[in-house]
Amino acid sequence: MRRQTIDLNCDLGENFGYWRISEASDEELMELISSANVATGFHAGDPNLMDKVVKGAVERGVAVGAHPGYNDLQGFGRRVIQANPEELVNDILYQVGALREFTRRHGTKLQHVKPHGALYMEAARSVELSSLLVDALAKCSPETAVFCMHVSETYRIAKAAGLKTVREFYADRDYSNTGSIVFTRRMRALNPEEVAEKCLRACTEGKVKTVEGDVIDIEFESICFHSDTPGALQIGKAVRKGLLDAGIRILPAEEILAEAA
Amino acid sequence: MRRQTIDLNCDLGENFGYWRISEASDEELMELISSANVATGFHAGDPNLMDKVVKGAVERGVAVGAHPGYNDLQGFGRRVIQANPEELVNDILYQVGALREFTRRHGTKLQHVKPHGALYMEAARSVELSSLLVDALAKCSPETAVFCMHVSETYRIAKAAGLKTVREFYADRDYSNTGSIVFTRRMRALNPEEVAEKCLRACTEGKVKTVEGDVIDIEFESICFHSDTPGALQIGKAVRKGLLDAGIRILPAEEILAEAA
Amino acid sequence: MRRQTIDLNCDLGENFGYWRISEASDEELMELISSANVATGFHAGDPNLMDKVVKGAVERGVAVGAHPGYNDLQGFGRRVIQANPEELVNDILYQVGALREFTRRHGTKLQHVKPHGALYMEAARSVELSSLLVDALAKCSPETAVFCMHVSETYRIAKAAGLKTVREFYADRDYSNTGSIVFTRRMRALNPEEVAEKCLRACTEGKVKTVEGDVIDIEFESICFHSDTPGALQIGKAVRKGLLDAGIRILPAEEILAEAA
Amino acid sequence: MRRQTIDLNCDLGENFGYWRISEASDEELMELISSANVATGFHAGDPNLMDKVVKGAVERGVAVGAHPGYNDLQGFGRRVIQANPEELVNDILYQVGALREFTRRHGTKLQHVKPHGALYMEAARSVELSSLLVDALAKCSPETAVFCMHVSETYRIAKAAGLKTVREFYADRDYSNTGSIVFTRRMRALNPEEVAEKCLRACTEGKVKTVEGDVIDIEFESICFHSDTPGALQIGKAVRKGLLDAGIRILPAEEILAEAA
Repeated sequence: MRRQTIDLNCDLGENFGYWRISEASDEELMELISSANVATGFHAGDPNLMDKVVKGAVERGVAVGAHPGYNDLQGFGRRVIQANPEELVNDILYQVGALREFTRRHGTKLQHVKPHGALYMEAARSVELSSLLVDALAKCSPETAVFCMHVSETYRIAKAAGLKTVREFYADRDYSNTGSIVFTRRMRALNPEEVAEKCLRACTEGKVKTVEGDVIDIEFESICFHSDTPGALQIGKAVRKGLLDAGIRILPAEEILAEAA
Repeated sequence: MRRQTIDLNCDLGENFGYWRISEASDEELMELISSANVATGFHAGDPNLMDKVVKGAVERGVAVGAHPGYNDLQGFGRRVIQANPEELVNDILYQVGALREFTRRHGTKLQHVKPHGALYMEAARSVELSSLLVDALAKCSPETAVFCMHVSETYRIAKAAGLKTVREFYADRDYSNTGSIVFTRRMRALNPEEVAEKCLRACTEGKVKTVEGDVIDIEFESICFHSDTPGALQIGKAVRKGLLDAGIRILPAEEILAEAA
Repeated sequence: MRRQTIDLNCDLGENFGYWRISEASDEELMELISSANVATGFHAGDPNLMDKVVKGAVERGVAVGAHPGYNDLQGFGRRVIQANPEELVNDILYQVGALREFTRRHGTKLQHVKPHGALYMEAARSVELSSLLVDALAKCSPETAVFCMHVSETYRIAKAAGLKTVREFYADRDYSNTGSIVFTRRMRALNPEEVAEKCLRACTEGKVKTVEGDVIDIEFESICFHSDTPGALQIGKAVRKGLLDAGIRILPAEEILAEAA
Repeated sequence: MRRQTIDLNCDLGENFGYWRISEASDEELMELISSANVATGFHAGDPNLMDKVVKGAVERGVAVGAHPGYNDLQGFGRRVIQANPEELVNDILYQVGALREFTRRHGTKLQHVKPHGALYMEAARSVELSSLLVDALAKCSPETAVFCMHVSETYRIAKAAGLKTVREFYADRDYSNTGSIVFTRRMRALNPEEVAEKCLRACTEGKVKTVEGDVIDIEFESICFHSDTPGALQIGKAVRKGLLDAGIRILPAEEILAEAA
């Protein structure tokens, strides 16, 4: 039951132009993780940054995924835009392809796709959006894994369609009794040791405490933390150390999936 | 000396959201051409339109190319942005990848890349930009042809690097004695029959008259007309008819290149 | 009971850069109306067009209003963005100020503010957004009228706060029994004569037929038609002719309000 | 000859959405200065930030100016866009008006206009752009001062037209023998004490050392430092202290102008 291996993923490349969103640099964060979700220019990131982050990930053996968001830089992709699912899928494919081109440039491949922020939550909730997205990815990108919550339409539909799926455990988000994370536009500061313990417990016992005060079962193949959470670097380091100290190896999601297969 | 075959290309997908730039629809124009340069969202176009145009091109046997531009919707990519060549190449790769994803969706491949408007002219002029772009395409997309003017750094450098090159003859632009086209932000109306005759002469004699009043030699594998030129549909029809009536077959650029090889 | 005067308003300046959204030109439409809602760059329009339209309106004695929308060019402001009301009010003030500067340049004043599309509907529905907006306008622009539906929070709150209000009758939208219009992202073609009759009946009897088939009472000081409705120019001409033939004078909203006061 | 009073200005509100560009907060910087150049959304800033910064400036008695830039968030307004002067003036008016609306909201007025980055340098160089801009400001905003370099077309033309002018001395930029600053896209770190001495010398002797190693005369009514220069807060504090210690009072530009008049 206890996990021997786990993927550790983080959103990277979420600065924009001359601006920074996180105290930690992408380079520092890449030293900690096995999979990078690279922002693709709609909610954060720009072509120069995408190029730099993909290059850096390849140099460090970090697997690369596309992290498409709503087309809303000012709102950082955390505000729902009530577009049709067809429009949203086209927006996602556009961004996935843009990032894939930089993986071609730097001699790697696209490991996964993970929608960002409000789009991730919208896909989790919407049968129609998840279905259209899964259909499109099955055509464009059948070898690419979909990162998602266990409790989500995205997981259910991607799995049924035979796509690779990677369920995430959220280090820096609260859980409700439904098994879903509680979405927020701004994060409060967290205690890195507490976050690390929460992750370790999830890996060893498969349990997480909810905002309602209960303890629920949780299944996942990857742990996520966010680069824009205050203290992200300390959180990442504590989580990584906690896992390694407990003898759990940190590997890219595709290796986790290959092991399980 | 006389051409037996020629590619006929046109910029498509240059509407945006709810707006239109040309009287002719993409569908009408696609009936006339063998290669489509599909706008990729920076100077025109959007993901929904890219999806629609690529789908339509595949249905009609029209080859698809990416048409990346400066990141300037309001200026339609016809205003130079003084960015570094590295930045511009990243912008181009981003757009090329975005379009390539839709070719994956609709079961075709990316035949070519052709920068748009002021970016096309800037690449033609700049050794540094053309070199960086050719280097990048050689890595990301070695099988993809580069559309360019004969008299351009882009052509010289792409050819030297061993990339496929397709030189264009501009149906609806004036030529100067240098062999370059005269760049303009707004087009005047043209006589379709005169445009057709100009194209036919270029194909049969390899000659074009310049704004200075001279006649110069011209070499090319493709004829281009612009969907936003007033009367584009009539121009396209006249050029197509003129070529077909003269026994010249209209084929996608890759077939022209394959024949020549 | 029968109206002797009425304002006739239309959204103008809704092209963008090189693109057009309507067959009718702003200049043609301005010949028909007494008040122009000028797009302010977020959902449509750009600074060059704002300058041109305000100049044209002043030359023709058409009163000028700001027409702010959601920050979503691709969606033409017809997709809700789930932003906080505070954010939306800041977006509106930004756009109102931008347009006001062009009225200063051309020697007129800002007659009114009218949110566009999905933002208009969101304000109509939301007590919080309408309250914040009315508060802000009362500070920045106490002399400026608010265009709104009779059945809306915007009307109720603006009136209670002592702002000038102008209720609109929608020539080219359907009504439901609630007295609200039925929002749509794309308009079907309409019969101009039927639209003109509907407007005339509303002016003379204060009645409109609903999609449910009933006839309801309707109160308003201005009639609106949309420049992007197919056949907008014919609709505008028919409505104008119908009103004038019935002896109803078409005047800017501020004059209607002054008469009533 | 020695200045008794001086204005101290800084670019503020240059963050964007969730991102930061400077280590120092706008609030910290506002404690140091007498005039704020508030970014207006094209190169940096957003409506929420504009609202916040104007409110904060009013609370601290800091005068407010508009800081319009090229429409290029990614390039932070430091890349020239080769637009027509008419287009650029419309872009500037749009931004000036947007900011003015927030001064209306918070009960202050617009003290000045200062173009940002590459647009400031382009105006300094271009007779046509400066002329059109001065004409437009004379109509829209005759009471508003223009911030500019002494050695610039902007100064010469604004002064000739009777507009209020405020010449700037650049604390954190190098001077060439022409009296112009040396434009840069990225700033190196500077020694705050050296910057303070350079400013004090300019105020007491009217001299500055150039990159060529010479010392030239310099005239100005305001000292500028940039919030995105590394160590901006320390630079601002050192400059302020240096001035105050030497008995020079720091006042908003309009008071400096009123004194001189």
